[in-house]
Amino acid sequence: MHVEFSDVIQKRRSTRKFTDTRISRDVIKELIRAAQMAPTASNLQAWRFIVADDLVIVKQVCMFSPGISGHPPVVIAVASDLREVEERGSENSIRYGCMMDAAMAAENLMLAAADRGLGTCAIKSYNPTAVKKILRIPDYFRLELLVTLGVSENETAAPARKPLEKVLFWNSGDERNV
Amino acid sequence: MHVEFSDVIQKRRSTRKFTDTRISRDVIKELIRAAQMAPTASNLQAWRFIVADDLVIVKQVCMFSPGISGHPPVVIAVASDLREVEERGSENSIRYGCMMDAAMAAENLMLAAADRGLGTCAIKSYNPTAVKKILRIPDYFRLELLVTLGVSENETAAPARKPLEKVLFWNSGDERNV
Repeated sequence: MHVEFSDVIQKRRSTRKFTDTRISRDVIKELIRAAQMAPTASNLQAWRFIVADDLVIVKQVCMFSPGISGHPPVVIAVASDLREVEERGSENSIRYGCMMDAAMAAENLMLAAADRGLGTCAIKSYNPTAVKKILRIPDYFRLELLVTLGVSENETAAPARKPLEKVLFWNSGDERNV
Repeated sequence: MHVEFSDVIQKRRSTRKFTDTRISRDVIKELIRAAQMAPTASNLQAWRFIVADDLVIVKQVCMFSPGISGHPPVVIAVASDLREVEERGSENSIRYGCMMDAAMAAENLMLAAADRGLGTCAIKSYNPTAVKKILRIPDYFRLELLVTLGVSENETAAPARKPLEKVLFWNSGDERNV
């Protein structure tokens, strides 16, 4: 049940209410493979994906993540392995490179989920110390964001996007150019 | 000539050699629309897209961007409007929210380009002061990254991705779990 790319871009929504349908590990593996295909600065590939699909652990993560809503059956923590960054990356990889890599990988993952009719939500509001402890994430992994995953309970409309003329400038950011 | 989502994810490459084929503004507008469909924390939509397609300006941007290679006909600067962030966002929007929004929007844009057979490359190595001056980007826009766009001169293979067992952990980041 795969669909055209442009439909997937439109279909992806931030899901905030999930059914209790479990997601198979084979599906999750495919989503992680899609995430890995995102660009990665200096080919660092420092992202790591810690997937909570044990419902006891998922519940604990949710308790310490105010940003999570709707009881997802799966939470994926996207982290950067700072040992690898220190070995092969630069100061800038730590400052922003890895964070942007993680965001692009997460977007691929969320689109790949939408392609399979699954819902996701990117989460930045969580207690990183607690989440790292629950998921036994080592000190040298930096948590970049969480992604919740599951079957959406309801279809929601995307919030309207700004009209193009508010966000697009040709050759000059000078506002008289809009 | 639109293709299945999963093929687009595989097809996207970082293009470092472009032909001199011009890209129409209608196509660029569609790519920006795809970018706008990415998630945006707190529905902030603070991203702004300053598109250089005037070849004189493109050349100037390239001169101050060591990360750019292969003579792209178009460079798109992805920026965050900090006025909007200060009005409606939080401290965290400035620290990382906008940067991650910009990265996800850029990934959508690059995938939408791949869907149309176009090449792109995300660039973080540039002189932000010079680029902002050339593109007359106002002080209250923060430059997040550049994306080059055009027709790829040659097809290149993607660098091999790490095997899944190196990057995927189930329920615990403890390495014994791998």
